Amino acid sequence: MELIKRISLLQELNVKLHRKDFLLTWEKSYDELVTVLEVAEILREMREQNISPRIFDSGLGVSIFRDNSTRTRFSYASACNLLGCAVQDMDEQKSQIAHGETVRETAQMISFLTEFIGIRDDMYLGEGNKYMRQVAASLDEGYENGILPNRPAVVNLQCDLDHPTQSMADLLHLINHFGSIEKLKGKKITMSWAHSPSYGKPLSVPQGVIALMSRFGMDITLAHPEGYDLIPEIVELSKKNAAESGGSFKMTNSMEESMVDADIVYPKSWAPYTIMQQRTTLLQNADKQGLVELEKQCLIENSKHIDWEYNEKMANLTKNQNALYMHCLPADISDVSCKNGEVAADTFEKYRLDTYHQAGYKPYIIASMLMTTRFEKPLQILSDLIFSANQRVKE
Amino acid sequence: MELIKRISLLQELNVKLHRKDFLLTWEKSYDELVTVLEVAEILREMREQNISPRIFDSGLGVSIFRDNSTRTRFSYASACNLLGCAVQDMDEQKSQIAHGETVRETAQMISFLTEFIGIRDDMYLGEGNKYMRQVAASLDEGYENGILPNRPAVVNLQCDLDHPTQSMADLLHLINHFGSIEKLKGKKITMSWAHSPSYGKPLSVPQGVIALMSRFGMDITLAHPEGYDLIPEIVELSKKNAAESGGSFKMTNSMEESMVDADIVYPKSWAPYTIMQQRTTLLQNADKQGLVELEKQCLIENSKHIDWEYNEKMANLTKNQNALYMHCLPADISDVSCKNGEVAADTFEKYRLDTYHQAGYKPYIIASMLMTTRFEKPLQILSDLIFSANQRVKE
Amino acid sequence: MELIKRISLLQELNVKLHRKDFLLTWEKSYDELVTVLEVAEILREMREQNISPRIFDSGLGVSIFRDNSTRTRFSYASACNLLGCAVQDMDEQKSQIAHGETVRETAQMISFLTEFIGIRDDMYLGEGNKYMRQVAASLDEGYENGILPNRPAVVNLQCDLDHPTQSMADLLHLINHFGSIEKLKGKKITMSWAHSPSYGKPLSVPQGVIALMSRFGMDITLAHPEGYDLIPEIVELSKKNAAESGGSFKMTNSMEESMVDADIVYPKSWAPYTIMQQRTTLLQNADKQGLVELEKQCLIENSKHIDWEYNEKMANLTKNQNALYMHCLPADISDVSCKNGEVAADTFEKYRLDTYHQAGYKPYIIASMLMTTRFEKPLQILSDLIFSANQRVKE
Repeated sequence: MELIKRISLLQELNVKLHRKDFLLTWEKSYDELVTVLEVAEILREMREQNISPRIFDSGLGVSIFRDNSTRTRFSYASACNLLGCAVQDMDEQKSQIAHGETVRETAQMISFLTEFIGIRDDMYLGEGNKYMRQVAASLDEGYENGILPNRPAVVNLQCDLDHPTQSMADLLHLINHFGSIEKLKGKKITMSWAHSPSYGKPLSVPQGVIALMSRFGMDITLAHPEGYDLIPEIVELSKKNAAESGGSFKMTNSMEESMVDADIVYPKSWAPYTIMQQRTTLLQNADKQGLVELEKQCLIENSKHIDWEYNEKMANLTKNQNALYMHCLPADISDVSCKNGEVAADTFEKYRLDTYHQAGYKPYIIASMLMTTRFEKPLQILSDLIFSANQRVKE
Repeated sequence: MELIKRISLLQELNVKLHRKDFLLTWEKSYDELVTVLEVAEILREMREQNISPRIFDSGLGVSIFRDNSTRTRFSYASACNLLGCAVQDMDEQKSQIAHGETVRETAQMISFLTEFIGIRDDMYLGEGNKYMRQVAASLDEGYENGILPNRPAVVNLQCDLDHPTQSMADLLHLINHFGSIEKLKGKKITMSWAHSPSYGKPLSVPQGVIALMSRFGMDITLAHPEGYDLIPEIVELSKKNAAESGGSFKMTNSMEESMVDADIVYPKSWAPYTIMQQRTTLLQNADKQGLVELEKQCLIENSKHIDWEYNEKMANLTKNQNALYMHCLPADISDVSCKNGEVAADTFEKYRLDTYHQAGYKPYIIASMLMTTRFEKPLQILSDLIFSANQRVKE
Repeated sequence: MELIKRISLLQELNVKLHRKDFLLTWEKSYDELVTVLEVAEILREMREQNISPRIFDSGLGVSIFRDNSTRTRFSYASACNLLGCAVQDMDEQKSQIAHGETVRETAQMISFLTEFIGIRDDMYLGEGNKYMRQVAASLDEGYENGILPNRPAVVNLQCDLDHPTQSMADLLHLINHFGSIEKLKGKKITMSWAHSPSYGKPLSVPQGVIALMSRFGMDITLAHPEGYDLIPEIVELSKKNAAESGGSFKMTNSMEESMVDADIVYPKSWAPYTIMQQRTTLLQNADKQGLVELEKQCLIENSKHIDWEYNEKMANLTKNQNALYMHCLPADISDVSCKNGEVAADTFEKYRLDTYHQAGYKPYIIASMLMTTRFEKPLQILSDLIFSANQRVKE
């Protein structure tokens, strides 16, 4: 009955997640984030105790992936399945951004018996999150006009701004690693750019990490070579978050400096914000020649920073030479997946299982987001499920 | 218990839907159509009352889409899911019509634990419905020879002749809009060709609409430019239907004339029947040059009729300047999805939510077709489900 | 309660299938094979009696198809669905063998809430089975390190060595056809090469058939033109099996000779082992020109053996001119699917329904493999399910 006790503690929080989409962590209050994290943990424990969290007898969980995905695709499928929904993928088979009219219509057409819509749209700066809000607005219209029997929740499975299912899974990993959410206070986390021989990696992971971790009193260091900026507004937001939560926020153009005394390191490649802006314009103009030249120029620029590799030398600068290494995977591993990557092979290997643990929280985070946005009283439903104690698997 | 009363009324009808596929509405009796419509409505009400209509603990609902689909794909998936079946898509990855031998074999191979097979095959005149019957014949052989433990029902998700899940959903929309099936008597519905800058749109929607609506005492007007004929046999059938049901059937080559005093208008583009015949022959001969020329010629012909747009001027001719506008979606909207389309943007906007309501009936119509063809006593099962009153979603 | 009696007989067998993958029939003991066969039959009977074998309330059955599949895809989907799991396909969208690192990682990423992983990887000699073992090793690591809450079972859906779901379904067909497993003793089965105008057909079916059937006291004849060898180690294994089980094993380069007095014939094309070796090397070197030449040369070689067709003349040589014809389907049928195929059209037609029956066992064989590898006490679970007698379909 320890789970029931944990649920009752949550009931005291001030939470309004119901019928609101989960698009950006910074639109959610501290209590709301805590609720999503704790419900995820409870769902994970229920599964370990073979208690079924099945809420739905039928219902669709729609996925729209406008970019490739394995990890998030399987996490979303697992989450929908865990709650009792069947996944139905909406395959657009076309990469251009559909105009407003069609988004509006399509959103209805796929939602008549749908409980959730998970969307990945991270290719175009200024577009992905906007698209999710267009879908959401259409669902509102459909629900308010009696076209949809219920309002499916939209969950951001990665956009141009944030990757909340990733950052929340990362956070849950940290909470369990360090023992509690309170113990994260004063921990130093370094979100560092790292070299990769590829180009155009989204900004959503580093942005999501700094914007979320800064809510919990951590000392954030953001490191990247000159010019590899993130979206300025999100950096500003993170600074503000850090100040408010009793943490700190610092930036540097030196990877070494950023690593000193770090408790946690997150070395990961991304494309500079200004390049992503140029790229979006070129894509919108279908300027193929321009895109080829931009890619070429970027790879040359990247290659000036092959020393931004996380390796033993870097690790030795961290707290006790043993900062927790994090990555959203797959990592570009030097001499394994490429010549000069984000991380040295032996360093990655040391923390490889940690990164698998980190990834393993995502299905439960998504399931929690689905539950808490879809139901008015998700904690009551959880309690009922635990008291019923139906087996997930017959034994 | 109002639902139980409605079910008991249906039990007096003379219906033989069990173990018969749903391929063409004109193969079904009036009582059978009424049963499918009313079961769809009952399923919709059950969902609104959170009563689970889950009949299957396991079972596959196979889909074969030989042409693109979003709306019908999601409707079929929703219907299968609502009843408890998992959708398994049969992806042929080839567009040519498979020869008899392979159809026969494939039909068995995908059916060992299958409850339903939904098929869309609308590309080739003379082929789609024939293909469905080949599949059905093979299923008969498999069932009769003890290869298949039960006979999956085949449901036509659009063929060259009919689009019964669309026309039945359209009909249910009309019944609910006007209040009852009896109130459709004497209503004037105009099925009109409309201009589109695309070519080769199937005939199945207009054919399905005139052949079905003519069963219910409505006054049908079929309008199109000279040469844009539908399959003559289906037009003849519709005339006969209209005469028998106490309605009327009229044809005109003037869009304006067709709109006068209409209660309902359904302006939609299609390719002329004779063009579809030529196209089928060219496709069968793999005559690429011929196809290019045919398309060019058709678009030139189409462009002579850009005045066949449904707009305020047309709408003002209808009953009270306010005929119910219908479309199977997506509509070609002038200055939105194309320059000169089927409907003016402001006119479409006025009825946009109506078209969403119209589309929303399709999942329930399909679920009803699945139930009534699969079970000997679907009404008894429905009653049992309502008495059990298992929740679809835990609350 | 006849099913309960059958289950209790199985409980006396010495079986260790739990937490072991099903990759090769020759890694399983006689008792283990008998258990899988009998559980498959019990599952089939349960379905016929409308008793639900649903064990899972939620859970994913992942499929990885590195080669096309219809039959096995639907069988796997049916099996997962029958037990209560949802199928989630892992679409690699690339044909090259991923290097060790990525396989290891991907295996974890798709398994957090996964119960089963079915894999088809039959394109490269020396690679398919190896890949499955890499996945399995990674799952072991994840389970042992607490990353995966349970260890998903890996089931071989066809590799370069064996096709156990096919050969076990074939065997179950034979058991039911001849009345019992004991009655297979002394039956003569001819696994014969047959002509096909295609190239590169896998060796796994003939290898799987001779390696499995030789366990049950049957007299095996393996026939093929000179040079069309199977993997030598598997032929040697089959000889040893035959000797140990009281059967016999014979090879010939004459199709006619192989057919004399056969009770069962399995005429099917395959590519010579040495060609498959060359092909693997060429593919690994991405030698397109070499591949084109190899294919050309092989088709010329094949065309020298168009007389290796199973037809009335061949059938007349068999026991009572009526040997049971088997094929994994689709067969290359002369004058139907090609000019000179594996089997004459009239001969195939005579046994066509038999081949459908044969194929129909595969979903139950797979479901049995899933159950017996996943659970410590699958027979106890089966008994419980039968006593509960929940309906699979409401009636």
